[in-house]
Parts: sequence; structure tokens; C-alpha cells
Amino acid sequence: MTAMNPVTASLLPRYEMVRAATMSLVETLSDEDCTPQSMMEASPVKWHLAHTTWFFETFVLEALEPNFKPFDPNFRVLFNSYYNQVGHQHARHQRGLLTRPSLSEVEDYRQNVDGRISALLLIADSAGAEPDRELHRRIELGLQHEQQHQELILTDVQHLFSLNPVKPAFYSTPRIPHQPAQPLEWRKFEEGIAHIGADAEDFCFDNELPRHRHFLESYSLANRLVTNGEYLRFVESGGYREAALWLSDGWAWLNQGAEPRAHPLYWSKQGDQWLEFGLHGVSPLDEHAPALHLSYYEADAYARWVGARLPTEFEWEHAARSQSGWAPAEQPPDIPRLIQLFDTGWQWTSSAYAPYPGYHPEEGALGEYNGKFMVNQYVLRGGSLATPLGHSRPSYRNFFPAGTRWQFSSIRLAR
Amino acid sequence: MTAMNPVTASLLPRYEMVRAATMSLVETLSDEDCTPQSMMEASPVKWHLAHTTWFFETFVLEALEPNFKPFDPNFRVLFNSYYNQVGHQHARHQRGLLTRPSLSEVEDYRQNVDGRISALLLIADSAGAEPDRELHRRIELGLQHEQQHQELILTDVQHLFSLNPVKPAFYSTPRIPHQPAQPLEWRKFEEGIAHIGADAEDFCFDNELPRHRHFLESYSLANRLVTNGEYLRFVESGGYREAALWLSDGWAWLNQGAEPRAHPLYWSKQGDQWLEFGLHGVSPLDEHAPALHLSYYEADAYARWVGARLPTEFEWEHAARSQSGWAPAEQPPDIPRLIQLFDTGWQWTSSAYAPYPGYHPEEGALGEYNGKFMVNQYVLRGGSLATPLGHSRPSYRNFFPAGTRWQFSSIRLAR
Amino acid sequence: MTAMNPVTASLLPRYEMVRAATMSLVETLSDEDCTPQSMMEASPVKWHLAHTTWFFETFVLEALEPNFKPFDPNFRVLFNSYYNQVGHQHARHQRGLLTRPSLSEVEDYRQNVDGRISALLLIADSAGAEPDRELHRRIELGLQHEQQHQELILTDVQHLFSLNPVKPAFYSTPRIPHQPAQPLEWRKFEEGIAHIGADAEDFCFDNELPRHRHFLESYSLANRLVTNGEYLRFVESGGYREAALWLSDGWAWLNQGAEPRAHPLYWSKQGDQWLEFGLHGVSPLDEHAPALHLSYYEADAYARWVGARLPTEFEWEHAARSQSGWAPAEQPPDIPRLIQLFDTGWQWTSSAYAPYPGYHPEEGALGEYNGKFMVNQYVLRGGSLATPLGHSRPSYRNFFPAGTRWQFSSIRLAR
Amino acid sequence: MTAMNPVTASLLPRYEMVRAATMSLVETLSDEDCTPQSMMEASPVKWHLAHTTWFFETFVLEALEPNFKPFDPNFRVLFNSYYNQVGHQHARHQRGLLTRPSLSEVEDYRQNVDGRISALLLIADSAGAEPDRELHRRIELGLQHEQQHQELILTDVQHLFSLNPVKPAFYSTPRIPHQPAQPLEWRKFEEGIAHIGADAEDFCFDNELPRHRHFLESYSLANRLVTNGEYLRFVESGGYREAALWLSDGWAWLNQGAEPRAHPLYWSKQGDQWLEFGLHGVSPLDEHAPALHLSYYEADAYARWVGARLPTEFEWEHAARSQSGWAPAEQPPDIPRLIQLFDTGWQWTSSAYAPYPGYHPEEGALGEYNGKFMVNQYVLRGGSLATPLGHSRPSYRNFFPAGTRWQFSSIRLAR
Repeated sequence: MTAMNPVTASLLPRYEMVRAATMSLVETLSDEDCTPQSMMEASPVKWHLAHTTWFFETFVLEALEPNFKPFDPNFRVLFNSYYNQVGHQHARHQRGLLTRPSLSEVEDYRQNVDGRISALLLIADSAGAEPDRELHRRIELGLQHEQQHQELILTDVQHLFSLNPVKPAFYSTPRIPHQPAQPLEWRKFEEGIAHIGADAEDFCFDNELPRHRHFLESYSLANRLVTNGEYLRFVESGGYREAALWLSDGWAWLNQGAEPRAHPLYWSKQGDQWLEFGLHGVSPLDEHAPALHLSYYEADAYARWVGARLPTEFEWEHAARSQSGWAPAEQPPDIPRLIQLFDTGWQWTSSAYAPYPGYHPEEGALGEYNGKFMVNQYVLRGGSLATPLGHSRPSYRNFFPAGTRWQFSSIRLAR
Repeated sequence: MTAMNPVTASLLPRYEMVRAATMSLVETLSDEDCTPQSMMEASPVKWHLAHTTWFFETFVLEALEPNFKPFDPNFRVLFNSYYNQVGHQHARHQRGLLTRPSLSEVEDYRQNVDGRISALLLIADSAGAEPDRELHRRIELGLQHEQQHQELILTDVQHLFSLNPVKPAFYSTPRIPHQPAQPLEWRKFEEGIAHIGADAEDFCFDNELPRHRHFLESYSLANRLVTNGEYLRFVESGGYREAALWLSDGWAWLNQGAEPRAHPLYWSKQGDQWLEFGLHGVSPLDEHAPALHLSYYEADAYARWVGARLPTEFEWEHAARSQSGWAPAEQPPDIPRLIQLFDTGWQWTSSAYAPYPGYHPEEGALGEYNGKFMVNQYVLRGGSLATPLGHSRPSYRNFFPAGTRWQFSSIRLAR
Repeated sequence: MTAMNPVTASLLPRYEMVRAATMSLVETLSDEDCTPQSMMEASPVKWHLAHTTWFFETFVLEALEPNFKPFDPNFRVLFNSYYNQVGHQHARHQRGLLTRPSLSEVEDYRQNVDGRISALLLIADSAGAEPDRELHRRIELGLQHEQQHQELILTDVQHLFSLNPVKPAFYSTPRIPHQPAQPLEWRKFEEGIAHIGADAEDFCFDNELPRHRHFLESYSLANRLVTNGEYLRFVESGGYREAALWLSDGWAWLNQGAEPRAHPLYWSKQGDQWLEFGLHGVSPLDEHAPALHLSYYEADAYARWVGARLPTEFEWEHAARSQSGWAPAEQPPDIPRLIQLFDTGWQWTSSAYAPYPGYHPEEGALGEYNGKFMVNQYVLRGGSLATPLGHSRPSYRNFFPAGTRWQFSSIRLAR
Repeated sequence: MTAMNPVTASLLPRYEMVRAATMSLVETLSDEDCTPQSMMEASPVKWHLAHTTWFFETFVLEALEPNFKPFDPNFRVLFNSYYNQVGHQHARHQRGLLTRPSLSEVEDYRQNVDGRISALLLIADSAGAEPDRELHRRIELGLQHEQQHQELILTDVQHLFSLNPVKPAFYSTPRIPHQPAQPLEWRKFEEGIAHIGADAEDFCFDNELPRHRHFLESYSLANRLVTNGEYLRFVESGGYREAALWLSDGWAWLNQGAEPRAHPLYWSKQGDQWLEFGLHGVSPLDEHAPALHLSYYEADAYARWVGARLPTEFEWEHAARSQSGWAPAEQPPDIPRLIQLFDTGWQWTSSAYAPYPGYHPEEGALGEYNGKFMVNQYVLRGGSLATPLGHSRPSYRNFFPAGTRWQFSSIRLAR
């Protein structure tokens, strides 16, 4: 009996774990919970489960499986998100109308594709030959993609539940109050040429490449994120009604609805009590917790209010690399340590999402993954409480339009 | 033991039958099928199930049950459709986001209210006394309301399914082809004063009252509805591109989307073959079947194309009463008989929905049932294949805006 | 020398007078005032001047002038309002962008067409023969059309000026305060068959035909219009915030903007003082003046608030004919006289604009004048302070959508 | 008699010349031409004339004139563009409705302010003392602002005229055909640290500061702009229907109207002949002329189609400085010379409009001039045929949203 190739030996269990992690997220959700789409930008949970499977089916099986036949030809269209080179897509704003296929059929779809991916991996590597690099690369891309959607499942369920007047909780356990935050301190970085972008060795998305040089003037970053309590002072001092604090588009965004926006997305006020909605349902606003679910406009206005600014993505990456763990750390005890880089809230940067010098998207449909969105969006760096462990890194570039609030987005100040 | 009051003896089984009929409609639907809202004008099946129950809870139990307590205070808002005098309403366009309460909780709600209605009816009438007329009136109103929603459940499911590219069928059985239609003949009615509106004796909605006089010039009505085959000739002769055939608003309505409307809502063309979507899924267009799902604009344009017009609601009612069954019929054999009055498709009339002379809506919230919609809508008369048996009558006034197509609406010509 | 035909002898001076009256309206306006379009529904003054001329050019000259050549081929499209059978139309919402042709070129256009119409009229009738009935009919139609646009010039200028923060006045003279209104009295009319529609003898639009019978239950009409003072009490008692007073569409209309509508279009409040904008500029609200510039929704809600209703157009016409002047009047001194029928404000009726029994629009493009608008609009009857003398009559049917406010529209109550 | 201060001696004539240049632009326009607003983003000519005057009145006279009184208090609001710290603004989309004040009143306004500015300048400098630096700085800012609006007057008139079916020409002279363009050549620049931003000495806007360092990888720029003929090949080869060539937002932008966008804004096709609308009216497309009036999306898609890209604003500025004139030029004869940098078409860069490191907007309302627009816009560099002589420089940053087409925007390729 042929011994399993050692690379496969690590990729196959990883595949199974990541795919199972997705399903474990939806364990407590009903079929109904998995059906609706709460807004254009969000997707139904069922759609996430199917689309991530479609991704493996399209970019692994269709590309590499002998005698490929789709699980269901309709799914090719229904669960294609935005890949024009693959073909037509079901209208994005109508994803919530797909009561068929049922959730249970989508689970069958997942199992079918999982089986075929496993088989492909086992067969390809069984001969003791070189591992099939293209197969491994595509599976790894699918897993990274799946992890992105794990975070989106949480943001999208939270948004859906927020629009239900009964305010359901995703977690049945109560929210644990935060400890008081550390004092805000500034960590200074000297001017110089920074190396920006991913190392070739580990996995990265194409938008993190090529690694290149960027000149940075000296700058300082806050050691931690802005807290709810700090942001509340901005709200209560009238910050949302002071045009001078806002970008022109931000001021228009504040005032575009029937009621002007006057606080973060998930905040509300009952009498004198500020409340916050989240995956634990409604609870009193925790002033020690980091302020989350903020738009770029809100982050920018807050920074202006305190006389600071948002960092560029280059400043952020350089700082994150200077932190022990990813880069050689010789951090003396009197230099403040940057915390909450990857595990609390994505951090808005003032950098528009743009290609790095020399960037070329991959040929074919996979080139649509990142490149075609490089306009009118802003880069967020780091990661959040909803980002799967091991998914984040200093060169990671998340991106959303400036008015986006339903993501776990937060503020790290710079100056 | 007191004998049951004979009126109760007939109302209670009727209550149980109508309520059960609603549930039997949704037997083959999954929880997911019952969740989404396909457009503003339609509602989720789950919402229909809950709203009809809310109607009984609000207008029967809250009004007449001793020590009334709501099943769930949230439901007071979630399932209030448009009764401002009852209180706030959940945003109409967000009915499809209510994954909680679950369908099963809504079924519990139905059972709870059904039990309390039965108890109320039994107690009220148990003393052998006079039946409680107000209780009976309100229950009967609730049952008529429930029957209206039975039809809406079908129209709304069909619309939802039509937007799913997999085109699910509501019925598992195949569609039975229609026999060739009778020749189109005209039945003439002489001028005179017609009595319009409901008799006081049987149930009617307030908009059917008061009975009053209307002078009719002589007119003729077609004996049957326009068929798909006849309408197809209008389509294929370029009727949708001939401005002179359309009302000005109708022409604007044709051209308001990215693609001009060019055929009825549920028609499509595959190569040379016209197809029709319906509760049986997609099938070839049946030329002998009546043309359904037409807007007022389409009905009006078709009528103009053939040199006819739509009837007024007064002409229609007068004609329907002249037909045997409701009015003394002495129909000689050489007078064409009007068919498809109540059981095929609602028939657009050229009458704007307006109050009859002397109309007064009921006091209180129930006065919002009909009266406040008496502007910018057109009256349809008769009934459709989806109208529950026994729910239709010659004085019944259905009404929708002129652009409405997802109802079972059809054309009966006049001249 | 041939004597002038006596019909021409009256039509030619009438033509000249009506055309001159239009120009006298715009005497005090600058070229700039005549250029912009304040909203989709309104038109620039320059466009009115050109369109009314286009109407004569198209429907008189093109039809009847030997060797017809258009003044300017571009004008055929630029100044066609909505006649699809004549050809394309300049985009309606872009009428205010036509800085060329200049106002002075449009005046040249008017003079050119006026000269050709006069010549045609003189030649056609010079032989002492029968007057050319078709020529006369078409010229008379053009004059009636011109008079309609005379009123629209005033409503459109007032609307344009109202949106200018400097609030220009059209008239340089101050507004004369009204005398206190007569007491509101009700005039009763008995039930019976009324004859509705125009006599064949005098000019009328096709929508006033055919004359036909309509059964009226007995009803009463208010002797005069609702005053500003009466309407103000509705406003100040919270009428605009009481959903139960409004039609459902009316309530939605009140609340569709960023700020809910809370008073009539041209009213505003400065401190405690209510102001009204009009052709005389801004002045304090005159409580004795009739309330003008109301939508159907406002008229209907006010009527409901006082326990009355709006009349049908049939009731209105029957009443207007019963008044001395048009019908044999034997009005005893104890019967209240209806005033303000034709000279103050158009009166909303509860009648949707629909064809009379047997109505047929004229063949060809002139058939588009009225008929294609017979959906989703409501009939106003009478006339206003801006209606040219001699243009109104009991059978006249004006029509606008229910949300229209910039016309001189008012309330006469019925019950 | 005191001699005039030499600085004044140059500023006063410059003031008069720039102000007169504005008026000379509108010499051939009628009052009507100066009134309408063709779209939200454009302004009426009259408004430009008044707003630039408002700018001097507000930021020079109100700040520095003793006993300042406004020319007309209404103008403070009517002609304030977007300065919230100055006060309210007339609704931007209703600028075209301001028929009052008249053009002639606006000319009076200009003369009044011109007189007061001259007086202020003469008095302030008459004592032979130091020139009043703040006065000079603010007047210079006003002149630069005026020059920006000179270009906008041309772009806005062209846009207005383009929407008029009679297609008026701004210039009465015919368009002169272009000579064939030079061959496209690439000029290479070596990697290194570039100094970006304005020198302190001459006038610049705050957004050009502070001067700072930027690392550039080596790159090449095209010697000239893309021509109509080159762009036509992109159009005719189906470039507008090939999703893979477009950014995702660009593809959506192409398809957002009733008809997909299929060519540049001012192009049209008549039979086989491509036409172009411009300040000279309609003429056959000149294949040798530079392609103008392109959006960022079109520029980006074209660049992708030819295997190139757009330059960053840093690359552009570095290259422009390397060109003789502004920077020490040692240009050997075999290096292609960059032409059409400043005098043909603004050049889209791939740089989102963002603050330079250390940027601080001015205190007070003038800080709103540039800073608050630094989101969701893209930088254009250079200048155009409509840019006043002497107004452009290598550090100048123009900026517009990516879908903007009515400016004189063009493509210079990079790679």
C-alpha cells in the first residue's frame, strides 16, 4: 500500500477542518435563518455555503478533475458570485429568493464536492510522486476563500438579525464584559524605505504582490483600538452634527436617509441607556470594548476630532512587521506594544485600494478574484474577532467602500 | 348539558374548515419556501399565516375576549399589515427578513388563536341565548379575510418561484391542456337603471355598500375571457411597440425598465416556442387557456387593438346578476351565456376604485380595511381559479393598481 | 372686392386676441425667466410660447396649408409635447436646457405662423363660399389649447419663482386682501337622471362627449370654496399627522420626502406668522381667501376632517348647470347660490378621469390630446383666477394626478 | 504722491486681467445660455460669474475690508458653493432655477466687488509700507479659483449645448484638423526617491503640500496622449462589451442606464460616420486629435486593452519635473520628449485623491477648499486646452470621481 504523500497528509486534514468549521458556524441556525438576504451587500447563509462549494467545484474540479461533470448545471449560475469569465450570475439582489435548492440539498452539494476533492487529492499524490502543485495551490486558495466567507457568514447573520424587531441572538451565551482598556500610547516609527507586500513563500492573495519598496516619513501609531467609551464621547459631544469634522462625501452619507445618521450602526438609545446589538443580541453598551462596525467616514471624522488621522496601509504593515512574531523583534521594554492588530477589529486605513507597482492579476477567471475591485474602495488591515485563526497576516489587504459598516471594522489612530 | 346554538353549529365547523384550508395550501412548501418576500407587493407565506391569525387575535379576541392577553406582544407589530389605528407596523419591504419567529412558532400561534376563538364561540353561544351577533360578524370577516389571503398565498408563491432560475413547481402534477375555447360572442344588455351593490342579507365587505342606482347605456359583454392564443396574436403583431394602442401611463410602464416589456409577466420565449410559468412550473403556452397575469394597461391596450373596450364595474355587475343563479334568469336559448365569471381570472374593469354614493367605512381600525385604498386603483370583478369556492359574488370588488400583473387577472371585453 | 366671410370676421380677430394675450402674459419676464424648467411637470415659458405655435403649425398648417414647409425642422421635435403619431419628442425633463432657439427666435416663430394662419383663413374664406369648417375647427382647437397654456404659464412661473430664495413677484402690484367669506351653506339637489357632457353646438374637447345620462342620488354642495382660514384650522389641529384622515396613498405621499409635508405647497411659517407665496410674491396668509394649490389628497383629507366629502364630477356638473346662466334658472331667494364655480380655483372631484360611455378619441394624432391620459388622474371642474375668460363651461374636464399641487386647485365640499 | 507699491503694481493688473478674461469667455452667450444647469455636477454660467465674485467678497472683503457690508445678503447663500463654515447654501441641483438675480445684476455685482478689491489693494499698499501679505495671498487664491472656473465655464457650456438637439457651437470658427500624431514612444525613468509636492515659493493649493519623498520603482510613460483614432479601434473591436477589460465598478457604470454606454460621451455615429461634439459644434471625428472627455473607467479599460496601465500621480509629477522647463533638463536627443503635458487634456492617474503625509488644511472655511474632498475621487494631472495659461504646474492636483466625463480628460499610458 502506497504511503500518503506528506504534503497531502497535511492538506487533506486542513481541508476537512476548514470545511467543517464552516458548518459548525451554522449549527444553531434554522433553515429559515439561512434563507434571506438582508441587503444587496450581504448574502444568505445558504448562499455562502453553496458559493464556497461552487468555488472548489469550479476552480479545482472543473480545472483538474478528469471527466468533470457539474453536480447540478443550475448551480453554475446560481452560486457564481461575480466571475464573468465563468459565465452568467444569478442577480445579486435576488439571492434571498432561492428557496430551492433547499439547505439540505446544499449540504449534499458540499458533501459531494468534498468527496471529489478528497479523492482527487488522494489519487494525485498517491504515487509517491511530486505533489501536484497546481492542485494544492487551488485547494489552498479555496480554503482561504472559505475562511473569508466564514467571517462574512457572521457579519451577514448579525445584519439580518439586527433588522428583526425581536432581535435574535446568534450566541446563546451572554456577552462577557471587557476589562478597562490600556492607556492610549503612541509608538513612533522612523522614516525610511519599507518593504511592503507578501513574501513569496507562504500563501497570499495576488493583491499582496509584488513585494516592493515604499518610502515612509516618520509616523506614530496608537497602541490599541479606539474604545466604545471614547467613541461615545464623540457622539455625545455632537460630532455627528459638525460638518467641519467630516469629509464631504461623509457628510452627504450621514444625511442621505429620512433620518440623519447619528451613531454607529448597531447602537441605539433607550431613555438614557445606550445599547449595542451584536451576536449576543442586545446588551448595554460596553464602554471598555473596542468600537466596531464603523464606516470609513466615521473613523476618519473621529480621528479628525481627536487631532489625529488614519494610518496608510503602508504605515500599518510596516508597524505590524516591526512587532514581534513576524519580524525580528528587538522591542525594548519602554516602547509601547501594538495590541489588537489581528484579533479584534479590522482597521481602516486612508489608503484607497490600488494595485501595487508591477501587479498583474492571474490569467483567466481567477484574475477576477481581487483585481477588478481596485477602485472606489478603502483598505482595512489586520483582522477581527470573526477572522478564522491563522487567516490573517501583516500583508493581508481587506477592502470595502467607505460607507461600509456591517463588517467588524474599527479605528487605530495615527499621527 | 346545553345544546349547541344552531348558528354556532354552522360557524364553528366553517371556521375550522377555512383555517385548515389555509394550512393545506402550504403542505408541500418547505420552511425556506415560506420565508422570502419576492417584492414589496407580495408577502412571505409565513407572514400570511401569521397575519391572518393576527387579524383574528386583534379584531375578535382583543375586542371580545375577557382578560385578553396577546400571544406575543412582538407579533402585534410584526404581523400588522396596515392598520394605523392598531399601532405600528413592521416595515413592509422587510417582511422577508423575519426568520424568527419560525414557521413552527407561527403554527403554534395559529393553534393558540384557533383554540381561543373556538372557546369564545362555544361559551358565547352556550347559554341557548341569542347568538352574539358582533362575535359572529367579526369571525365571519376574519374568515373572508383569510380566504383573500389564501389566494394571495398562491399568487405570492408563484411570483417567488418565478424569480428562481430553477423554476420550481408548486403542484407536482402536470398541467392539463385546455379544450378549445368557445367562439367569442357578444351578449347585449339594454339601457336602464341598474341596482349596484350588495344585498344586506349575506356577508359583504363595506366597499360593496350601499346598494344604489346606476344608469347604464346599452352595452355588450363578451361571453368568455380572452385566450392566450388571441393575446399571442396581439403580441406577435407588434402590439407592445405601437404607442397609439396604449394609455400614456401604460406606454411609460412598458418602457420603464432596462428592457421594454414585450409580453405578459410569466411568458418567455425559447427559440420559436412560447412558454408560460405557473403553479405547475414551466410549460408550453396553452393557446386555448385564458390569458392571465395581465396588467390593466395590457388589458386596455388589447381591447383597443380589437376595437373593443373594458367594461365598467357597473356593467359587469349588472351582467353577472342577469346570469342565472343570482338573479331571476329567463335566459332564452339564443342568448349567449357568460362563462368564466368567477372561476378563471379576475376581470379588469375601467372603473377606478371609488366609494359608492353614501359609503361610510366602519368606525375604528376595521374602517381601514377597504376605504383608505380608494384612490389610484382599478376594480377587478369576478374571481379566479385561485379564489376559494363560495368566496365570490356579483357585488365583490377586488382592486389593484393598474400596473399589477402577479394576480390572476384577465380580460373580458365590452363594447 | 370680396367681403370677408362673417365667420372669418369673428375668428380672425379672436385668433389675434388670444395669441396676443399669451404674449402680454410674459411682458414683464426676462429672457432668463422664460428659460428654466422647475420640475418635470412644468415647462419653461419659452417652451409654452413655442409649443402652442407648434400646435398651430402641426395641426393647422401641416394639415391644410398648400406646399407646407416647417419654419424649422428642429422645432418639429423640440416643441412636440407628447404626440407620438407626429414623431419624436425632445426629452420632457430637458426642456429647460433649450437656450437655443432664443426667446426672440421663438417670437419670430410665432409671428411667422400667425401670418400663415391669417393668410390661410383669409384665402379660404375669401371666395364668399362656405367657411372651411375643418380649418375653423382646427384653429378653434388651437386657440382653446393656447388658453390652456396661458394658465400653465402662470402656474409654471409661480412654481419656478417659488424655488428661488429671493422669491420674485410676477405682479408688481400688491395683493388685495379678500373680504370675509360668506357663511358656508349647503345647496341640496334631488335624485334623478342627469344629462352629463357637452352640447354639440359650442366648442368642446372630445373628452366632454358624448352627452349621456347619469343617475344621481340626492346630494348637497357647498355654496363656496374652503377658505385659507378654515384650512388653517385643519393644519393647526394636527390634521397632517393624523393617519386616519388620509387615504393610504395620501399618507405615503405626505411622508415620502426627507421632511413630512405639513401644510399646503406655498405656505410657510416665520415665527408665529403664516405666509403664502403667490404671483404677488410673499405675503401674510389671507384667511379670507380661498385655499389654493392643494392636492387631491389634501382636499380629500380636509373633507373627511369636516365630515363631508368631495363631489363627483357628475354632481358638480349637474349643480353648475342648475345655476343661472347655463341652464334655465328659477332660483328662489331661499336657495343658496353657488359662487366661485369658474373664477377662483379648480375644484377637485372624486371622479377618476375616464371615458364617457361611447367615447371615441379623434382619429390620428389629435386623438392623443385627451384620451390617452384617462388613467390614474382625477377630474377637476370649474376654472380658476388664471383661466382665461370664456374658456370655462360646466362640461369642462380638467385632470391631474392626485398629488398635484402647483395648479390653482381648491375644495368645494359635498355631502 | 506716493508711488505704487511694486507688488501691487503687478497684482492689480493681474486681477483685472483675470477677471476680464472670465467675462470675455461669455461674450457670445445670451442671457438664456447663462441660465440653465445641465446636470448636478455642472453649474450655470451666471452662477460661475457670481460664485467667483462671492469668493472674493467672502474671503477677501469680508475678512479684510473695514466696515464690510455684503452687496446683497441673499447672494451670501445663493452663491456659496460648499463652504459650510460660511453658512447655508442654495440647493446645488437648483442653481439653474435662479432667473433672478439677472445676468446684468450679476455683472453689477462683479463690478462692485472689483471696485472694492482694487480700492483695498491700493489703500493697503499706498503707504509705501510692506505689502499686506494676507491680502495678497487671499487675492491670489481668488484669482486661481477664478481660473479654475474659467475652465468649468467651458466644460459646462459644452455639456449644456450637447443636450440641445440643435447642437449649438460655442465658437463660430470651424475646428482645425489635427496633424497626424507622433509615433507613440516610451520614456523610461529609473527607480529612486522622488520629491513630490510644490515648492514653497510660488503659489500652490494646500493639497500640493507638504513636499515629501516618494519611492518610485522604475517605470515608463508614453510620450503623448492616446488619439481618437487609437481609441476608436478599442471601441470598434468591442472593448465596451468585454467585461474582462473593465474594473467591476466600471462595468456597472457602463450598464447603469437604459442603453449601455458604448463610446465616449461626445461621440455619436451617423450611418458609418463617427461624429464628435465640442465647442465648435458637431464635426466628423478627427482621428489625429487626442481622445478627450473620457472617464477614469474608460481610461483604465483602454490601458488594460493595450497591455499598459495609468501612471500614478507620483510617476506623472516626477516625469513632468524631469522635462525641461521646471527641472534641470539634460535631455539627450535620443530620449523621447513628453508632449501634451499641460495644454491638451488632463491626464487620469491611478492615484486616489488623498492627503500628502503631514497635510493640514487651512484653519477656517478656506480649509474646506480642497481637503474635504479627499475620498472617492481620482487625481488628474497636467492641464487642458481649456486651462488658462500660467495656471498649470507639475505639482497641480485636479480631482474628479471615476465616472466623470464632461471634463477635458485624457489618457497618458504608463507601464
